[in-house]
Amino acid sequence: MTRSELFAQIQQKSSFLCVGLDPDLEKIPRHLLAEPDPIFSFCKAIIEETADFAVAYKPNIAFFEALGAKGWETLARVEELIPDDIFTIADAKRGDIGNTSKLYAKAFFETMDFDSITVAPYMGKDSVSPFLEFENKWVILLALTSNAGSSDFQLIQDESGQPLYKSVLAKSQEWGSPENLMYVVGATRGELIGEVRKSAPEHFFLVPGVGAQGGSLSEVAKYGMNSTCGLLVNSSRGIIYASGEKDFAKVARREAEKLQVEMKSLLEQYL
Amino acid sequence: MTRSELFAQIQQKSSFLCVGLDPDLEKIPRHLLAEPDPIFSFCKAIIEETADFAVAYKPNIAFFEALGAKGWETLARVEELIPDDIFTIADAKRGDIGNTSKLYAKAFFETMDFDSITVAPYMGKDSVSPFLEFENKWVILLALTSNAGSSDFQLIQDESGQPLYKSVLAKSQEWGSPENLMYVVGATRGELIGEVRKSAPEHFFLVPGVGAQGGSLSEVAKYGMNSTCGLLVNSSRGIIYASGEKDFAKVARREAEKLQVEMKSLLEQYL
Repeated sequence: MTRSELFAQIQQKSSFLCVGLDPDLEKIPRHLLAEPDPIFSFCKAIIEETADFAVAYKPNIAFFEALGAKGWETLARVEELIPDDIFTIADAKRGDIGNTSKLYAKAFFETMDFDSITVAPYMGKDSVSPFLEFENKWVILLALTSNAGSSDFQLIQDESGQPLYKSVLAKSQEWGSPENLMYVVGATRGELIGEVRKSAPEHFFLVPGVGAQGGSLSEVAKYGMNSTCGLLVNSSRGIIYASGEKDFAKVARREAEKLQVEMKSLLEQYL
Repeated sequence: MTRSELFAQIQQKSSFLCVGLDPDLEKIPRHLLAEPDPIFSFCKAIIEETADFAVAYKPNIAFFEALGAKGWETLARVEELIPDDIFTIADAKRGDIGNTSKLYAKAFFETMDFDSITVAPYMGKDSVSPFLEFENKWVILLALTSNAGSSDFQLIQDESGQPLYKSVLAKSQEWGSPENLMYVVGATRGELIGEVRKSAPEHFFLVPGVGAQGGSLSEVAKYGMNSTCGLLVNSSRGIIYASGEKDFAKVARREAEKLQVEMKSLLEQYL
């Protein structure tokens, strides 16, 4: 998917919502356990009910991988059922030396047909570039994450006072463009999103940490929105586990719609 | 596997060789393509012929993942056939927020039974700690890698002149001990292995980059060996693709033995 196609989708739905698919056998509604593939049935119901409000889906690969080969089969089926005009994110946090990254790219962009993959920057250019060589596919590079440990290394300042995440932003813009490179920017650090935006004015940001992790949507929009929206705000648990009962998909729809309504008004305010 | 069990194995075999399993359908001998699972047959033959000389096997997960669910089945079968007294490394470079890392740990330590997994440090403590909570399982944390891009971020110096990889070494030693935490330290930077050893005197290092990537085994031993060896030196392509013909496993055996003989003499010299 191209950047302009993604933006068209955002305008059409008045939404920049990404629904995170973290399907956990211990958390999904009990009645689904009778299904042949409970994780698939869960994801299918969530996708069907939220597709009107979501511009992206982000399967968290660990939740599938924990189930072994069967989980990978389920992942492939889930990816296939996501409508083609919705952006898909393999939240895999991969990254390795060149010939290995190339194989990870093949796994997610060819064996499966994801639009994008999250990538960790620690190993530098040749670990990221192989993912950027696929047409209309995207790297979403970890810049400033929303977890507690993000301050351990990402905020270390170099000799000129520049924190590591800004070095990641600066260097990686030599490798990719706003047409194939996004950044993960955590919402729990509202004040910092504006900082990141200064360093990457045109790039899309994938923003986790709204909802269950405590970030504020209006702060994210205030500091992070640009002229093509430039934001995909993710909510996982707040939507998919809003109800643990038989009505889970309907309740997920309601939660997704709530966020979409708020997003619509923020798009009107800032765009 | 415990550290003392690993050291016992090193002493018994007079070897600190790790054989990297990077099985690529395009590179394995052609006659194997007639097998029901060519990748499995390839790995099986390599393992059977090199097990006398190797103290560790390191499947590179990307090579399996690129084949989708079927590749994961093969990976599980390969892990199972590695003899129990040989250390197994899932070279996966994983790392995510706490609850997600926990699932990756489950995938490699419970769904499969690997002794260790390579982990990327960028997201900090809560992305690494969940892997350290499994008894007799290991994290092998990226410190200083051997690829070209390693200098992009790993060598950035902080305000006190300390490079990022040394911050990773220092902080992570608060999270794990020499009993459950190793480091990836690239061999192509011979002069730097001594530097890393100063910062982590007791920990094991997994050293890629010997052979095809150009590192020197004697330099690695000179600068990196400690009183319990403290080294696992990996060779992948130099062993597994030494021959592309029907004799591939025998030739792999010969190459593994060559390295073991060199290692034996280095162990006698430095231990």
